[in-house]
Amino acid sequence: MDKNKKMVEAITPMDEDFAQWYTDIVRKADLAAYAPVRGCMIVRPYGTAIWENIHSILDGMFKATGHENVMMPLFIPESLLQKEKDHVEGFAPEVAWVTQGGSETLTERLCVRPTSETLFCDHFSKVLTSYRELPMLYNQWCSVVRWEKTTRPFLRTAEFFWQEGHTIHETAEEAKEETRRMLEVYTTFCEDYLAIPVIRGYKTEREKFAGAEFTQSIEAMMHDGKALQSGTSHYFGDGFSRAFNVQFTSRNNTLEYPHQTSWGMSTRIIGAIIMTHGDDDGLVLPPAIAPVQAVIIPVAQHKEGVLERAFGLAEELRSVCRVKVDDSDHQPGWKYSQHEMRGVPLRIELGPRDIEKNQCIVVSRLGREKHIVPLDELARRIPELLDDFHKELYNKALARRESMTYVAADYDALLELADTKPGFIKSMWCGDEACELKVKEEAGLTSRCIPFEQEQLGEHCAICGGPAKCSIIWGKSY
Amino acid sequence: MDKNKKMVEAITPMDEDFAQWYTDIVRKADLAAYAPVRGCMIVRPYGTAIWENIHSILDGMFKATGHENVMMPLFIPESLLQKEKDHVEGFAPEVAWVTQGGSETLTERLCVRPTSETLFCDHFSKVLTSYRELPMLYNQWCSVVRWEKTTRPFLRTAEFFWQEGHTIHETAEEAKEETRRMLEVYTTFCEDYLAIPVIRGYKTEREKFAGAEFTQSIEAMMHDGKALQSGTSHYFGDGFSRAFNVQFTSRNNTLEYPHQTSWGMSTRIIGAIIMTHGDDDGLVLPPAIAPVQAVIIPVAQHKEGVLERAFGLAEELRSVCRVKVDDSDHQPGWKYSQHEMRGVPLRIELGPRDIEKNQCIVVSRLGREKHIVPLDELARRIPELLDDFHKELYNKALARRESMTYVAADYDALLELADTKPGFIKSMWCGDEACELKVKEEAGLTSRCIPFEQEQLGEHCAICGGPAKCSIIWGKSY
Repeated sequence: MDKNKKMVEAITPMDEDFAQWYTDIVRKADLAAYAPVRGCMIVRPYGTAIWENIHSILDGMFKATGHENVMMPLFIPESLLQKEKDHVEGFAPEVAWVTQGGSETLTERLCVRPTSETLFCDHFSKVLTSYRELPMLYNQWCSVVRWEKTTRPFLRTAEFFWQEGHTIHETAEEAKEETRRMLEVYTTFCEDYLAIPVIRGYKTEREKFAGAEFTQSIEAMMHDGKALQSGTSHYFGDGFSRAFNVQFTSRNNTLEYPHQTSWGMSTRIIGAIIMTHGDDDGLVLPPAIAPVQAVIIPVAQHKEGVLERAFGLAEELRSVCRVKVDDSDHQPGWKYSQHEMRGVPLRIELGPRDIEKNQCIVVSRLGREKHIVPLDELARRIPELLDDFHKELYNKALARRESMTYVAADYDALLELADTKPGFIKSMWCGDEACELKVKEEAGLTSRCIPFEQEQLGEHCAICGGPAKCSIIWGKSY
Repeated sequence: MDKNKKMVEAITPMDEDFAQWYTDIVRKADLAAYAPVRGCMIVRPYGTAIWENIHSILDGMFKATGHENVMMPLFIPESLLQKEKDHVEGFAPEVAWVTQGGSETLTERLCVRPTSETLFCDHFSKVLTSYRELPMLYNQWCSVVRWEKTTRPFLRTAEFFWQEGHTIHETAEEAKEETRRMLEVYTTFCEDYLAIPVIRGYKTEREKFAGAEFTQSIEAMMHDGKALQSGTSHYFGDGFSRAFNVQFTSRNNTLEYPHQTSWGMSTRIIGAIIMTHGDDDGLVLPPAIAPVQAVIIPVAQHKEGVLERAFGLAEELRSVCRVKVDDSDHQPGWKYSQHEMRGVPLRIELGPRDIEKNQCIVVSRLGREKHIVPLDELARRIPELLDDFHKELYNKALARRESMTYVAADYDALLELADTKPGFIKSMWCGDEACELKVKEEAGLTSRCIPFEQEQLGEHCAICGGPAKCSIIWGKSY
């Protein structure tokens, strides 16, 4: 087979079959592959490079806010998992159990961590002595396992990669501040680095984390109008501390229980990137996490001096962006499609005539806008173009979210919207779980969050007509 | 309790009880703690920061040699593990088995990966088509599980953290070159970054990796004369490829099996750092991986201007080293001991009189050498002092290894040395496994490696007296 003839196959259009479009991108952009174990994924080099960039930026933000990384074990003894009642009820049905080690049958089953609150609490109980050691601000990067029935790469897999922060504090106030601080870190990360606008708010009692006093989340809207919970931050009060007997000597020389938080962001966020920014030509990557920010495509690369100049240009640009030359022996058109599929923000076309004129053509992955740029201005222009790219991505996503967000004044309107308009529905709510359940069963929507930025959309709960407590956002979710 | 009176407790002297000395350092330098699961460890923030520095340097070296990271699943189906006969025999007795997922009993057991050759091979079989895609040069950072009976933090734990490289190549020659190239990367890393001199060589047939054609390793000598295998690189030939049906279309349009390698370095290397460089005052860290390379200790810090100058100095030094001010309210003497315990290479003492004279005192963790350094020369001097520190560490370790390496001309000498002299014993060997076993059973030594740098120590095997094939190194090992 002449590989120059091998074309980049088209992917299923988004409007035709959104789920298939998603799966096509995951496969054709070489992000992930299926593993031989049900529901697990292999994150391929390109997907891993994206995760490494996410890791690197977030980790820097965690360290800048005083957090330290630790590495906790993979296994949790069953007795430890059971110490906090709500927590075990939430997680036990979906964990994987190790029952044999070598040839020996274990006397106590070990679960493969679905999350590590119990391990951190056990550790805190052993190392904490005095208020002077507080706060303890820990984080770890690892994978966790939840035995999901239906799975999709990045969005829902039996094993997924994430970071989980776990902190303990002297007072409830400080722990609540930490909960919010980390939600703000996630917000900044999503908006300023991933170009994904998010809505911050509280989860309802029904949707909060197993064992938490409250959960805060950021919610993003995907291309198809569905919500993707993109990061969560939990406040535990002293519930876990009491269950695990974590205590410290206070300033008043009394024994006290610290107040606790946890917060996490996972490889799901790669799903959010795909479904917020992607289009029918493939992935579109926000520059901050794109493994390649600009790809140089030599045109007529067999001609003397072209490849040399392309590699020279890459060297010049290395200090301002992540750049790569594609000198494979495919045709330029094939390369254009290939790098569009992989979501590379900028393409730099450089042929013999460009070199003569001391210029190149820079093409944006968004809208294929073409810029003729003199070569000696390129190092200055690329960062500007990447910056513009980020803003354009963000604005597009925000405009879409706004155009797909509706207000329901009453229940009929809510049902009608749920039936006809993909997107978010805002309404007032009485705070009663019965109403929340009714919306779930009859409209097929779940509560996404009670936004921090409350709106006065009316005086009555859109579901039962009773006095409203707050505004809330409903949606279908991943 | 007045915490200024809380003294840094002494650790067990190395000569009194080496194992206890090691455990004391792990605990008092806050490197690791025991987990609630048998044989697992919690790597605490300081230990994790060391591992992150190791990760960062090694990862850069892997990428510079063309490798890409991937993230493979945690689980291996039993049928997959069994595909390569020697491999499953080697690993099956020591793996942890998942038999239940949620409430369901699995129809096929899943082992928690002890190493990932089988997963990589399965993946290669699905993605490889043509010689044009070769070599595939993959690596992953993860943890693996081996159900060990006796465990010690870093040295041998049921779960440990590592990187595992897995590559496939068009020819045997290229795969062998890769095997050696990665052993050289490990060598450079150990010697130039960790200041640990190593001996490179081949493992014997008996000691090679389960499923490999040959294994190369680097061996380091610890303070007590025992060997620690610090990194391994394996050549598999096409054995795994055949077992997993990994094939590609060759240049001649025939179907061929690629040749394969794998190579790994683990958190064991932190054990090697402790036992190569540590002393009776605690840890001694090579500057390249020390989380803090220089700690500033303000003297009389309550006096006006002292703390301010200390923090100002830290700012000035930030671009040349990892620096920290210890402004805790302990006494300076306590702080000195504390940072010595944690192995910080340089201590900078700064008091009111130093500030008056525009100088400070720099004390090396090695030999407590004191240097009076003018403050405006510090940013230039610190990198030099760190560089000297590295060299001194390396030379000390090398001199010790040389002084504890012996030559045995015959079996009596070998038995005598094994009995009386901790360290390495070099001898000639006929290559026969019977002789190797005899040394193990009667002298209590294992073969460490057949060094690349062969020596002509005689003509006869030191064990059986038969014709010698090669020189070999014997030792007790961790």
